[in-house]
Amino acid sequence: MSHPDDSRFMALALTLGAWGQGRVWPNPAVGCVIVAGGRIVGRGRTADGGRPHAEVVALAQAGPLAEGATAYVTLEPCAHHGHTPPCAEALIASRVARVVVACTDPDPRVAGRGIAKLEAAGITVTTGVLEAQARRDHAGFFGKVAGTAPWVTLKLASSVDGRIATATGESQWITGPDARRMVHAMRARHDAVMVGAGTARADDPMLTVRGMGVTRQPVRVVVSRRLDLPTDSAMIRSAREVPVWLCHDADLEAGVVAEWQERGALCLPCAMQGQQVDPASVLAALAGQGLTRVFCEGGGGLSAALLVAGLVDELVVFGAGLVIGAEGTPAIAAMGLDRLAEAPRFDLIETRAVGPDTIQRWRRR
Amino acid sequence: MSHPDDSRFMALALTLGAWGQGRVWPNPAVGCVIVAGGRIVGRGRTADGGRPHAEVVALAQAGPLAEGATAYVTLEPCAHHGHTPPCAEALIASRVARVVVACTDPDPRVAGRGIAKLEAAGITVTTGVLEAQARRDHAGFFGKVAGTAPWVTLKLASSVDGRIATATGESQWITGPDARRMVHAMRARHDAVMVGAGTARADDPMLTVRGMGVTRQPVRVVVSRRLDLPTDSAMIRSAREVPVWLCHDADLEAGVVAEWQERGALCLPCAMQGQQVDPASVLAALAGQGLTRVFCEGGGGLSAALLVAGLVDELVVFGAGLVIGAEGTPAIAAMGLDRLAEAPRFDLIETRAVGPDTIQRWRRR
Repeated sequence: MSHPDDSRFMALALTLGAWGQGRVWPNPAVGCVIVAGGRIVGRGRTADGGRPHAEVVALAQAGPLAEGATAYVTLEPCAHHGHTPPCAEALIASRVARVVVACTDPDPRVAGRGIAKLEAAGITVTTGVLEAQARRDHAGFFGKVAGTAPWVTLKLASSVDGRIATATGESQWITGPDARRMVHAMRARHDAVMVGAGTARADDPMLTVRGMGVTRQPVRVVVSRRLDLPTDSAMIRSAREVPVWLCHDADLEAGVVAEWQERGALCLPCAMQGQQVDPASVLAALAGQGLTRVFCEGGGGLSAALLVAGLVDELVVFGAGLVIGAEGTPAIAAMGLDRLAEAPRFDLIETRAVGPDTIQRWRRR
Repeated sequence: MSHPDDSRFMALALTLGAWGQGRVWPNPAVGCVIVAGGRIVGRGRTADGGRPHAEVVALAQAGPLAEGATAYVTLEPCAHHGHTPPCAEALIASRVARVVVACTDPDPRVAGRGIAKLEAAGITVTTGVLEAQARRDHAGFFGKVAGTAPWVTLKLASSVDGRIATATGESQWITGPDARRMVHAMRARHDAVMVGAGTARADDPMLTVRGMGVTRQPVRVVVSRRLDLPTDSAMIRSAREVPVWLCHDADLEAGVVAEWQERGALCLPCAMQGQQVDPASVLAALAGQGLTRVFCEGGGGLSAALLVAGLVDELVVFGAGLVIGAEGTPAIAAMGLDRLAEAPRFDLIETRAVGPDTIQRWRRR
């Protein structure tokens, strides 16, 4: 049974948990709040790197006040002994009276066992509080567990008419410094930043988070069928400091792959879909490596492939107040759609000004 | 000298005046407020069809209270005898003590003479209150007086990636009913709705204002070099009820032009610019016919031509949460730009949700 304040405390736990996004993979970014007598006595989130877990952090803060208290957790507490003892046991040991869970954990090592363990110890368990939001927040983790796909945010930065460069390839800068700064903040909220080979070649991007004081950089992912990438790129020169993962055709010659491995890249063989790397295979490979959230920054070909395959969870569009015209490079390449009914559709989350530009955030319908 | 409350009352006068936009051409949409002892005793705007003028409406409402009062007018009162006696004389006759004017009237029949007339009658005149906004509101009227160009609002309704139709031409509907309703409200605020020949052929649009209870429909304008338009279109069949103006190559055979005139259209010969009708010549022709505000609804070719020529004052972009891909029809056709520095730039006025879609309004920088 849920209590009137459950949603309020769970909303706080979800906010806490979301702070960990991009810093805790391969673990989920969980939040936890301990409430005793209507007062918050402990707060925690999965710590950077994935440990300690949110419950342990919050219980440590609550100390003896946890006895008889209610714990709000955004994901079912773990029940298995991994790197740390299970959180279900920590909650039992702290003598909390009630645990409120937003959503259950599909990890086969948990999958209801965390809740069963709590109930067996006489703790009242309520589930499903703010479940929809929690499922969305943890969707990338669930996809990792299933081995299918992490959460994918696709970012575009285009002119009013949807162009990302002039006919001559000039693209810096379409959007202004405020939007670019926001992109860095978004990168920091994801486990990896991903681009296609064309963008890697054309822009020689670092894809790191700059100006945000982060200590953990996201993995850099490049999708390149033949690994025909420049060997002296900014990204590959820094591959020993910040990981570079290359998703390539599984049939590529082993010697080519070995050369990139020697340069410090992790090479992930993927299935093909016609002439291009299958985006579903790319995401499955990334999930297999533990990624829960991927931020894709183009180019048009990779973006189109992800959209056609229905693999984009959130679409972030920065729009600048200029018009480039139809010779410019389109933000999204050909998608092979004939009918409007086939077009991937998104629901608006937010639209607002960012400096002189706009941001629109859309979520998969 | 201006008084502390001048901006407040002038803002009201500007709001009143703007209500007349789209209903008063070829006259300016002026607003007027009469204030006596800090109280508003009269309000007026240019009436539908352009007469009576705002000052006369406001003075009639004020009656004897106008004596000694201050009149706020968004545009210099007229000084010439046209269809009505000059407003400057009406203000003098009403014995107002002070007239506050937002901006002077470039109409050579006025051009400072209205103010001179008031001052000669012993009335204190203050000018330049909220002048920038007034100049923007009256910009289309000024363009008409100069014979150069009315105010041009360009509307686009596109997918996230800037497409207005699929490769097979399917375009209905990209945006939802809320956005389409807003388009009708915007049409009603303009003297004319304009499209290119391709859009006229492909969509057979009526371009009328529907569902708004308007009594005055905007003029329908089609830009078509050769007047190779369907003769049984919805628009031309209704040309005797709602005006249809056709802007064509001035060198077009007289017989072709005569045929369209017989069908009820007003044919406006325009200069060419290479293979297309010169957009500046089109707008000069429309200004010459008395239009002060034109709402362009595409297609991509006409929109691109207006943008390249720097003739778009406001850009209104409706965005739908779907992605069509690069084979779709671009909202803006080729513009011949190589460098980002050459791209026409706009400043953001507003961005917000409209039902499931977004609207962005941008104003020429």
